Amino acid sequence: MPNNEREYDVIVIGGGPAGENAAAYAIAGSDRTAVIVERELVGGECSYWACIPSKALLRPGHVLAGARAMDGITATGLDVEAVLRRRDSFVDNHDDGSQVKWAADNRIDIVRGTGRLTGERQVEVDGQVLRARHAVVLATGTRASIPEVPGLRAALPWISRDATNLHEIPRRVVIIGGGVVACEAATWLATLGAEVSMVVRGARVLASAEPFASERVVAALTERGVRVLFGTEPRSVDRPDAKNTGEGRIHGGPVTVRLHSDQGDTEIEADEIIVAAGRTPATEGLGLAAVGLPDGYVQVDDHLTVREVAGEWLYCVGDLNHRAALTHMGKYQARVCGDVIAARAEGKPLTDARFTASADHGQVPQVVYTAPEVASVGLTEAAARDAGHAVETAELDIAVAGSALARNDFAGHAKLVIDTATDTLLGATFVGPEAGEQLHAATIAVVGKVPLATLWHAVPAFPAVSEFWLRLLETRRA
Amino acid sequence: MPNNEREYDVIVIGGGPAGENAAAYAIAGSDRTAVIVERELVGGECSYWACIPSKALLRPGHVLAGARAMDGITATGLDVEAVLRRRDSFVDNHDDGSQVKWAADNRIDIVRGTGRLTGERQVEVDGQVLRARHAVVLATGTRASIPEVPGLRAALPWISRDATNLHEIPRRVVIIGGGVVACEAATWLATLGAEVSMVVRGARVLASAEPFASERVVAALTERGVRVLFGTEPRSVDRPDAKNTGEGRIHGGPVTVRLHSDQGDTEIEADEIIVAAGRTPATEGLGLAAVGLPDGYVQVDDHLTVREVAGEWLYCVGDLNHRAALTHMGKYQARVCGDVIAARAEGKPLTDARFTASADHGQVPQVVYTAPEVASVGLTEAAARDAGHAVETAELDIAVAGSALARNDFAGHAKLVIDTATDTLLGATFVGPEAGEQLHAATIAVVGKVPLATLWHAVPAFPAVSEFWLRLLETRRA
Repeated sequence: MPNNEREYDVIVIGGGPAGENAAAYAIAGSDRTAVIVERELVGGECSYWACIPSKALLRPGHVLAGARAMDGITATGLDVEAVLRRRDSFVDNHDDGSQVKWAADNRIDIVRGTGRLTGERQVEVDGQVLRARHAVVLATGTRASIPEVPGLRAALPWISRDATNLHEIPRRVVIIGGGVVACEAATWLATLGAEVSMVVRGARVLASAEPFASERVVAALTERGVRVLFGTEPRSVDRPDAKNTGEGRIHGGPVTVRLHSDQGDTEIEADEIIVAAGRTPATEGLGLAAVGLPDGYVQVDDHLTVREVAGEWLYCVGDLNHRAALTHMGKYQARVCGDVIAARAEGKPLTDARFTASADHGQVPQVVYTAPEVASVGLTEAAARDAGHAVETAELDIAVAGSALARNDFAGHAKLVIDTATDTLLGATFVGPEAGEQLHAATIAVVGKVPLATLWHAVPAFPAVSEFWLRLLETRRA
Repeated sequence: MPNNEREYDVIVIGGGPAGENAAAYAIAGSDRTAVIVERELVGGECSYWACIPSKALLRPGHVLAGARAMDGITATGLDVEAVLRRRDSFVDNHDDGSQVKWAADNRIDIVRGTGRLTGERQVEVDGQVLRARHAVVLATGTRASIPEVPGLRAALPWISRDATNLHEIPRRVVIIGGGVVACEAATWLATLGAEVSMVVRGARVLASAEPFASERVVAALTERGVRVLFGTEPRSVDRPDAKNTGEGRIHGGPVTVRLHSDQGDTEIEADEIIVAAGRTPATEGLGLAAVGLPDGYVQVDDHLTVREVAGEWLYCVGDLNHRAALTHMGKYQARVCGDVIAARAEGKPLTDARFTASADHGQVPQVVYTAPEVASVGLTEAAARDAGHAVETAELDIAVAGSALARNDFAGHAKLVIDTATDTLLGATFVGPEAGEQLHAATIAVVGKVPLATLWHAVPAFPAVSEFWLRLLETRRA
């Protein structure tokens, strides 16, 4: 083999959580070899620029609010510097040494650079040729989109990476968007002292969630002083002295955003602008054309295999396959994908359920770490009806002994979406403090297709917050 | 009917949560009538002297610890008076007006006094005769036992009711017992400033839980300065100037407790002694003999029906039937019992699963609100093996991104007990901060008999604490 060529059983392009798990699962318990090609940090968007820093920024505010809502405690904060230091420690100060060590411990090589498909089972990285005996896995994820608004790109707006890695708190911030990133960023920015305006195109935030989630999150944001502008779009952006001062630093002087809504046009001045308006597949330089694939998201079957390419050697996991753009679902796909690669390498049939990604069809859990948190799994009522299910719902405010004991100001709401044909849950949404930790019960009920008649015998402990499950089930007797 | 006689469809003796629910379910959606006979407060032990005040006392300490384990927050406390006031508000200052109103709203009469069975479907209360057309439900619960130790009863020790309703914090406390009541009381007393010693007969606390629960709770208690004496029994108690100063007041001067263990005898002086050494059925004056029943716990079948008495008119729910002495299980039994009474009154068959109390056979959830919390459902490994199951376990420390994000000092441990014959969970135990809110997922898995192969597709959201589920399941691949 030429000097600049190396052969592995498995090549993974993109070393985020999905790529890492695919590599690890594909070779676990075997003598197969794997390499991860990564052009930034091993650990990926989630570890350094998304889930981890955002939750590190949000959690202190949640804890402080909980302490303030409890008698007998005097709590002050937040000390912004301490919160930012904690965030820095969670992102390992952008040093991926611990992830590299994890890879080494799992016999996975790391190659730094941009991996480019150049043919069947072949990847090039800066002139080095990697050949795969079994599989190439694409796991490059997505990057922030910047919409085509005059002056916006020139204003050097913050994207989610700046917001999660902020080093100074802009006094006034405009956030373009109303999705998860926008709502979470608004929450921590307001908690850390910024004056926040959100520019939301539609009539609610978190548009794919149950409508009450939007209502409760918006009410809470508003109470913190966040101004939420619905039905509003940016028309132009003006920032005369934009300069790239580095990630998470304020990118120049004040920015003026001209807005349009049915109520008329207006403008906002702020010290920073954040674009949280969706994601686009990160396929630059990936060489999809070399294997006959169009640019854009990469379609896979339930074995995470790219069917458009012959030979069952190309896979795609994580955000890039556009099935469920969440770290935990990417990792889930990666576990399935790694198991599939291993089975095919060993000539085993894919009959077991673990070789099929079933949960990213309508059984996807998600937690939005706003205050209150929004936790959901499966289908909303609207999505279930759209999908043709005969649906009943159970719904109520979470107000049980456990919630009152948990904190004086507990306010929450819960909804179950029930398939009347099978008497099982299609989905659930819980909004409230720490609602994220209530979700797994619903996820198990949805995925396990546990009939409601059986859930009746799954008794919540008293006095836990989870007693709201009993109240939900009780609404269905009448 | 004579003046001193009244007829109801359903008579419930004992107005705790179990009694209340039995009455409400038995008449719901019908024109049946019900009465609850209660000699103390409607709402029962749980509402005024057990779960509610204990959790009200514990929760502030948990929240304070969580706030202290978070960067960016300065938290001080506990303000003992504020904590006691909060407890007082949760027990409605021992005014049962809200419960009486609940009863009225649900068309349930309340008769104050001691209900005594005097014959078939007949109860007397202070000379008044109540006749039941359909059912009499016994729900009088249990009361604290005081073991036969010389001098103990004369010392007027605190029982659980005093500990939960304490109005002053004894400087030094000796707790006799190592069960749930003892461990929880030790936790709040230490948190509120008392110097606590626990006298535990066996080699661990929470003896029916997984052994690691005891280890972790004892380690945490010890760290708070609690002295836990294992293998130790009180031999005699001496308190020269004991006086009954009222519930939750220090009952006189210092008390000396002489202790025996294999390591020798010793004595402790304290300002109060708490007996948390088990419960005994509250059957005084209940008239069990009048219907041919022996004194003591009342045995029932899975319809909560007392089989030893002919005619299917006598029921027993809650602690008094000795199936699962927990508020939520008493309420569960009450729901089943009420439904059974309603069905029989309406001449309907008891075929549906909701007419059978199945969950109190080995699917019982329980949370001990110590710090860390101990949450368990179903069988421990030892209990499962004793019951003849072929068992595997999955076990690990809870150390995921979500737990680290939740609090800097997060420490927890989780164990699943798996029936290898069916690949389903027989039980689970989670120990850690807020572990109680993690439990319902396990309860649904146990009761729903969800195969582990299916749980593999129930993805925990990232980065939630509940990701430990994934790690548990991953331990089983190898």
